[in-house]
Amino acid sequence: MANNNMAALLKRVAAQQLSVEDALGQLDDPGFVDLDYAKVDTDRQQRTGYPEVIYGEGKTAAQIIGIIQAMVPTHANILVTRVSPEKAASVLTAYPEMTYREDAQVMTWQQTAIAKTAHTIAVVTAGTSDLKVAEEAALTAEAFGNTVSRVYDVGVAGIHRLFARLDVIREAQVVIVIAGMEGALASVVGGLVDKPVIAVPTSVGYGASFGGMSALLTMLNSCASGITVVNIDNGFGAGYSASQINHLTENDK
Amino acid sequence: MANNNMAALLKRVAAQQLSVEDALGQLDDPGFVDLDYAKVDTDRQQRTGYPEVIYGEGKTAAQIIGIIQAMVPTHANILVTRVSPEKAASVLTAYPEMTYREDAQVMTWQQTAIAKTAHTIAVVTAGTSDLKVAEEAALTAEAFGNTVSRVYDVGVAGIHRLFARLDVIREAQVVIVIAGMEGALASVVGGLVDKPVIAVPTSVGYGASFGGMSALLTMLNSCASGITVVNIDNGFGAGYSASQINHLTENDK
Amino acid sequence: MANNNMAALLKRVAAQQLSVEDALGQLDDPGFVDLDYAKVDTDRQQRTGYPEVIYGEGKTAAQIIGIIQAMVPTHANILVTRVSPEKAASVLTAYPEMTYREDAQVMTWQQTAIAKTAHTIAVVTAGTSDLKVAEEAALTAEAFGNTVSRVYDVGVAGIHRLFARLDVIREAQVVIVIAGMEGALASVVGGLVDKPVIAVPTSVGYGASFGGMSALLTMLNSCASGITVVNIDNGFGAGYSASQINHLTENDK
Amino acid sequence: MANNNMAALLKRVAAQQLSVEDALGQLDDPGFVDLDYAKVDTDRQQRTGYPEVIYGEGKTAAQIIGIIQAMVPTHANILVTRVSPEKAASVLTAYPEMTYREDAQVMTWQQTAIAKTAHTIAVVTAGTSDLKVAEEAALTAEAFGNTVSRVYDVGVAGIHRLFARLDVIREAQVVIVIAGMEGALASVVGGLVDKPVIAVPTSVGYGASFGGMSALLTMLNSCASGITVVNIDNGFGAGYSASQINHLTENDK
Amino acid sequence: MANNNMAALLKRVAAQQLSVEDALGQLDDPGFVDLDYAKVDTDRQQRTGYPEVIYGEGKTAAQIIGIIQAMVPTHANILVTRVSPEKAASVLTAYPEMTYREDAQVMTWQQTAIAKTAHTIAVVTAGTSDLKVAEEAALTAEAFGNTVSRVYDVGVAGIHRLFARLDVIREAQVVIVIAGMEGALASVVGGLVDKPVIAVPTSVGYGASFGGMSALLTMLNSCASGITVVNIDNGFGAGYSASQINHLTENDK
Amino acid sequence: MANNNMAALLKRVAAQQLSVEDALGQLDDPGFVDLDYAKVDTDRQQRTGYPEVIYGEGKTAAQIIGIIQAMVPTHANILVTRVSPEKAASVLTAYPEMTYREDAQVMTWQQTAIAKTAHTIAVVTAGTSDLKVAEEAALTAEAFGNTVSRVYDVGVAGIHRLFARLDVIREAQVVIVIAGMEGALASVVGGLVDKPVIAVPTSVGYGASFGGMSALLTMLNSCASGITVVNIDNGFGAGYSASQINHLTENDK
Amino acid sequence: MANNNMAALLKRVAAQQLSVEDALGQLDDPGFVDLDYAKVDTDRQQRTGYPEVIYGEGKTAAQIIGIIQAMVPTHANILVTRVSPEKAASVLTAYPEMTYREDAQVMTWQQTAIAKTAHTIAVVTAGTSDLKVAEEAALTAEAFGNTVSRVYDVGVAGIHRLFARLDVIREAQVVIVIAGMEGALASVVGGLVDKPVIAVPTSVGYGASFGGMSALLTMLNSCASGITVVNIDNGFGAGYSASQINHLTENDK
Amino acid sequence: MANNNMAALLKRVAAQQLSVEDALGQLDDPGFVDLDYAKVDTDRQQRTGYPEVIYGEGKTAAQIIGIIQAMVPTHANILVTRVSPEKAASVLTAYPEMTYREDAQVMTWQQTAIAKTAHTIAVVTAGTSDLKVAEEAALTAEAFGNTVSRVYDVGVAGIHRLFARLDVIREAQVVIVIAGMEGALASVVGGLVDKPVIAVPTSVGYGASFGGMSALLTMLNSCASGITVVNIDNGFGAGYSASQINHLTENDK
Repeated sequence: MANNNMAALLKRVAAQQLSVEDALGQLDDPGFVDLDYAKVDTDRQQRTGYPEVIYGEGKTAAQIIGIIQAMVPTHANILVTRVSPEKAASVLTAYPEMTYREDAQVMTWQQTAIAKTAHTIAVVTAGTSDLKVAEEAALTAEAFGNTVSRVYDVGVAGIHRLFARLDVIREAQVVIVIAGMEGALASVVGGLVDKPVIAVPTSVGYGASFGGMSALLTMLNSCASGITVVNIDNGFGAGYSASQINHLTENDK
Repeated sequence: MANNNMAALLKRVAAQQLSVEDALGQLDDPGFVDLDYAKVDTDRQQRTGYPEVIYGEGKTAAQIIGIIQAMVPTHANILVTRVSPEKAASVLTAYPEMTYREDAQVMTWQQTAIAKTAHTIAVVTAGTSDLKVAEEAALTAEAFGNTVSRVYDVGVAGIHRLFARLDVIREAQVVIVIAGMEGALASVVGGLVDKPVIAVPTSVGYGASFGGMSALLTMLNSCASGITVVNIDNGFGAGYSASQINHLTENDK
Repeated sequence: MANNNMAALLKRVAAQQLSVEDALGQLDDPGFVDLDYAKVDTDRQQRTGYPEVIYGEGKTAAQIIGIIQAMVPTHANILVTRVSPEKAASVLTAYPEMTYREDAQVMTWQQTAIAKTAHTIAVVTAGTSDLKVAEEAALTAEAFGNTVSRVYDVGVAGIHRLFARLDVIREAQVVIVIAGMEGALASVVGGLVDKPVIAVPTSVGYGASFGGMSALLTMLNSCASGITVVNIDNGFGAGYSASQINHLTENDK
Repeated sequence: MANNNMAALLKRVAAQQLSVEDALGQLDDPGFVDLDYAKVDTDRQQRTGYPEVIYGEGKTAAQIIGIIQAMVPTHANILVTRVSPEKAASVLTAYPEMTYREDAQVMTWQQTAIAKTAHTIAVVTAGTSDLKVAEEAALTAEAFGNTVSRVYDVGVAGIHRLFARLDVIREAQVVIVIAGMEGALASVVGGLVDKPVIAVPTSVGYGASFGGMSALLTMLNSCASGITVVNIDNGFGAGYSASQINHLTENDK
Repeated sequence: MANNNMAALLKRVAAQQLSVEDALGQLDDPGFVDLDYAKVDTDRQQRTGYPEVIYGEGKTAAQIIGIIQAMVPTHANILVTRVSPEKAASVLTAYPEMTYREDAQVMTWQQTAIAKTAHTIAVVTAGTSDLKVAEEAALTAEAFGNTVSRVYDVGVAGIHRLFARLDVIREAQVVIVIAGMEGALASVVGGLVDKPVIAVPTSVGYGASFGGMSALLTMLNSCASGITVVNIDNGFGAGYSASQINHLTENDK
Repeated sequence: MANNNMAALLKRVAAQQLSVEDALGQLDDPGFVDLDYAKVDTDRQQRTGYPEVIYGEGKTAAQIIGIIQAMVPTHANILVTRVSPEKAASVLTAYPEMTYREDAQVMTWQQTAIAKTAHTIAVVTAGTSDLKVAEEAALTAEAFGNTVSRVYDVGVAGIHRLFARLDVIREAQVVIVIAGMEGALASVVGGLVDKPVIAVPTSVGYGASFGGMSALLTMLNSCASGITVVNIDNGFGAGYSASQINHLTENDK
Repeated sequence: MANNNMAALLKRVAAQQLSVEDALGQLDDPGFVDLDYAKVDTDRQQRTGYPEVIYGEGKTAAQIIGIIQAMVPTHANILVTRVSPEKAASVLTAYPEMTYREDAQVMTWQQTAIAKTAHTIAVVTAGTSDLKVAEEAALTAEAFGNTVSRVYDVGVAGIHRLFARLDVIREAQVVIVIAGMEGALASVVGGLVDKPVIAVPTSVGYGASFGGMSALLTMLNSCASGITVVNIDNGFGAGYSASQINHLTENDK
Repeated sequence: MANNNMAALLKRVAAQQLSVEDALGQLDDPGFVDLDYAKVDTDRQQRTGYPEVIYGEGKTAAQIIGIIQAMVPTHANILVTRVSPEKAASVLTAYPEMTYREDAQVMTWQQTAIAKTAHTIAVVTAGTSDLKVAEEAALTAEAFGNTVSRVYDVGVAGIHRLFARLDVIREAQVVIVIAGMEGALASVVGGLVDKPVIAVPTSVGYGASFGGMSALLTMLNSCASGITVVNIDNGFGAGYSASQINHLTENDK
């Protein structure tokens, strides 16, 4: 509870406008719904600007439905990531209003209309195999109201493809670069743009790519400045951070 | 060379206002000064919004001076990171206008005045031993014109220290969280703020911290959203990216 | 064989109350039942205070049944961990008295009544996906007679959930903290309680969590004091150690 | 601030016994002394039962002195770990009341008398080279009022040495086992005692011991139950946790 | 676009032989076919001497067919690696002209005749289990017009088998050595021939071979000179590089 | 070819008893049968004392049968390791004289009688789950004529089980110690016997056992002397080396 | 000894032109000079095309001098790598004809004139700090008679610097790309040239560069074809292999 | 205490030839000398056939002298490994009878004459830089009475050097192969001899040799049979195990 609120509450107690019991009740308001197997964070939107996002992996369909049920009354927009087709089918039965994108394993439900940003987020991939992660990033960003431009398969093995799309990339306010194997694309883009770059290593590759380790290290050690990194295959995280950054200027308007 | 410029150049050639030789010369303009041991990137400010920053490690004092020499005519503001006291002494003899901060191993020279940002960047550390990295981040951000607020030693072993300074952190437009050992502070801060968080793992620790690996993995795997990560001990990188983000709103004004 | 026993035995031999052959026989008493594929440690309860616990992984149902058969005559309470549903079905056919909890993959059989402890062990998890490990810990502790309080899904992404349950946690005599991904919860709890904390990293996560490595390193490098760590996903080990600690005060009564 | 205190405070505000400003002041009481480079956690003893312990590595002598200065008024007993002889000399000049043990790199100052525990903590090492870590553990435990018994150099290469001292180890309420190289001693002791075992891997060894990694993995994977593990060379952490456990029965008295 | 071409283009613009729009069009010629999910690099043959090779893993059969479709008009010879039998069946339905070699998981289509090299590439394996990788290398090299000699199962456990085939190996212009487990064969061959050796570690092995890591490190640390290394199981890469080297002398003819 | 043989051959050439062609033919005698996919090492028994052993993993049943076919005429005793039940069935159809032990995944065929050794090899395991590796070791040793004594499930969690069988172990001429998890048994045995100990780490375990890495490091770093180590799960290798050592005294008789 | 030579020798024995003793002597000719601490490989030039190169690290100055002494009579050109200034001083005292390049830690002595190649090897670095490794590569190549063109500091952070020098790189017959940090330059160059690329990762970097591991993995996982890799910092190895490749066309002339 | 001894002791107690107190005293005989910082294992020779060997690293000169002092009365032959020249000087002052070999960092003192073995142990190294480890192995073996033959610098880069010394190696009863870098020599030797091979990886190398890890993995994964491995740089361990094996036949005589 923020300090201002506390001062207000104390004043109301001092003015006998609020009983001690009610004041304690307000202080005790947990800010979450307790489902036993989960404590749904209903306070998150106020605290971080975004509602809780449901990470579908390791949860049963029943658990996902339960959490959605707890969120529906808050009118929050609902985003579920890493949902297998089987789980999605169950969830869709319970909530046919939801949309499922199998290629990205993402479910969304826009309960409350949300304005599109003026600025774009560019989602750039090195190869075709990075599309799953890219769409997770793009759909996440779109779920939070961002305008997204997709630039796919412009890896450094044919760097002219990147230069041919550089204008689109440079127009964006934030750039998400997604690459597996050696992940060199992040450094190249980083050296060519004047906007923040969020790099996403993917597990695409074999042998000494060690499940994305190679691309991760590449991106962390980039000789180009202005690059920050998220976990391997974490398209959601990149979309989320990019949205935060992209909305900074929206908020100013 | 951007496409617009190319169209302009072609038009001038077509109009005989520019000879083929001169046009080729302009196209050949390398955008760098070649010092043999280094190719100083004089085009970088236009391309990425910031002049080249000199990474002092692995360069001799003479090489650093040579690169500064090549940059002086461009009126760029000069920032040198990872400069040992010995090298700094030599550089200061050549350029007494420069400032050296030994605790951060950073040299700066503001050749051209630069406006301070309205919004702040918060630099937050878990412990006292993270100060060196924190100051590299803070001085980098300040060298690029950002207002910085420092919140040091608020690690989770005494989490009330963090809550006591949460207001300062929440006022910032970007938050840099710096932590060694287990690096848990990044996740806690990430769950409490609605602005982008850049996490910097440090090599502070011993045993199974493996030179910062532990904190790095912690930050990459954070259960909180909105966190991106830079290399171990990379205060500069965090300051640079934070500055890019912080200037997005400045540019809009 | 303890020294006191040896003195007693020698005295009886000297007093001709015990023949040399019988004395050697007692010394030769192996303290285990030899099943060829296993040597069931029937001496363990006396030595360590707890009967042998059967680790179900890598054993066939027939082997598990054989070991139970060897333990039944000792009236020991039986605990089998990591039992798949298939193996459990076979064991239940042989010993219908046993109880199987599929979510925790644990079988129990309380042959001998055991008093409940006055003090509690708190089992705390960061997320919903940590429940399997948490229940292995809780059921282990309960099998050894401990009172257990469960506090699930209070990870640091919404730290107010933890504070809302802090009273329950602080009432416990030992706290087990279970977390995957970056495992930061252990450090936060460690800084807030005055009782021993046993941290269990889980393999929940993806990418650079490296099968639980990330959470393991976090917990080993915790900046908070009073935290000890067990193997990844080792709910049993945490429950066992917590029981040992929790019974210290019971024994004193 | 605990809930009970909050109720009391609100009642006093409602009864006009406390002004809103003073109530806010109490709520704002940070529980730490802010030294700029450090926020000394003066609330820790109440929260965790122990005062803040100063980790000397990575702090200057001046910083250590400054933190001691902030703690002296609280009458807390002072413990500084990982202090080099040079730093210790400076600290001793400022506080000659302190004691320095160079072999363990530990400084102590018992400002307030503290009762010795009835039960002992056994500190057991595999080899002679583990003594530095062992003394850090033992001195930490003693600084918190524990009775300590030392059993050194009883590694498994000559396991009869361990059996010869088993009585001393079995008398303890908590056992700390310290070993480098392959760290097998922890498993052997764990199989022979009925009390909690805290294992400390050390960096003693060469080649594939990888700076203590080998002993760490051994201890985490122990086939014996009842073993929890701390970071490599973390004698302090083991002594601290052992003290917490050992005092459980003291508190009950 | 090479500099010479740029001069020619500028001259034609200056001579009004080419409009500004057409010049920009030529400059804008992307050198790729944009399939949305892929940007097929039609410029690669001119740039690197070889057409784009399709990496089949992580692409659907439909995507592979689409890329082939884009390449057919360029008359490039088509090579697809890592194609499972299922995908191959689909591709063969669309393009029955193609050939599939299941043991190597490679598809080829020689649209344009290509001369065989005078010199050979030797493909040498340590064991029988390395054949899959070896055939990927051999078929790649043959697809690019090289004459290949195969020498299989001559690992160092029976080094006389290698000496018995040394003549064939020494006749080659480039030698590809393929080995799993400890990968020692590369060093032995490297010490016996005077031609470039390309070493391919394979994932054949178990335990501490760590998926090919052991053979990879062996080859990188070879005490013999003249050995370069490609990724684990990267038969294609070895065949490609060997072809580049082998054609150097062809080009000179 | 050994030097003595070469001298003999040269003398026969000089004496015209052997033509140059025939001499070259003998020098060219490859000492292997070339099956294209394999070069069966028929010279190995003379060189190393043992015939080639067929490693079944990664070979088809047809390839295994082909290699056996090439070995039958040499009257060598045949040993195939790592044979799945499916492959074994095929091989048994071709060679019903062979014996298959599914628990050890080993096939044997004693074509030529072989004397049993006077001395024994002891095969000792820490747990029940190590039996598969143990039987691979034991069957390998027995296939080479060794007398084997098995001592299973005597891990250090109940060390009295080991002491109860110490006599059997001490009677052996070579001791094979097989353990997963933390692998401490090897050090304990190494400190108690005066004969060579060969340690086999197994992949039994979970979490931070990292597929046998933990036990491997333990055994390599053993504080006990006289221990050498083979690859993870390499029961065959241990049985082979133990046989070599055990036969040293047989050869002397 | 090659087969042809053996046939010739046998014929001379058969013709009584060579005694058995002399024949054996020739067969026994070891092809090395035995210095006790080293066996100098005097046969290597004939076998591999190059004389033995002396690896200076881990050898004393006296040992280096001894090996040179053994090589002088063969008129081989002498190359010593990794020579510290101190050792170089001693060697220069013994052999003042030698040349020492401290920046590359390389000593050379061209005893026999050697023709310069018509084609060039391009040595390309990403940064200024890679110069030491680059010069080791360049001097090695020059010692073997190659024409070398140096292109330094053209890393991807300012990729226009690379394009500005692309002509020089494309003219070469072999390209050596040297880079630390994330090592992305190798992939970019690989996508732009039609000649073999040898990539050298360097240990330049900090934090998660792990001593060159990051650049090494990048290069092994390159999405561009035609790249082979040598050990971290192995400038010599790259120069050697490049020379082998570059001389293929020279040999044809 | 062995069972036979126990029976004898019990009989003497029963026959009143031994008092209970004396019997307990004999049972209590610790078999070590307790020096506080060390428990010198005086029982080891009887148990393992060899006296305790002093590992000098991590012990002070005073501690080493103290342990020697405790061993002198047992007439054991004394071996101290890893002794720096400084410590050796101190020890030599106390015990001038000792011999110090600085290149191997080994001290020896043959208090009791010991017969030389009839069979030899061959110590084989790949390079000149492996000599330090080789001499530790050779001196250890010689201290235990073995005849040793040294074959140095016969690595696979010039494999003819190995073949030239194969006779000496084949005459040995045990072969120790010592190699750094890629460690391929062990596999090659393993494929050529019929005696046990003990492989010692050394930390010689750089870059991806990772301090001996590369050679260690090579040796563990060897495709040749009959190879067991000790820790990186563990010359002592190899010499010790080789001596155990070599004495098997001696004991039979």
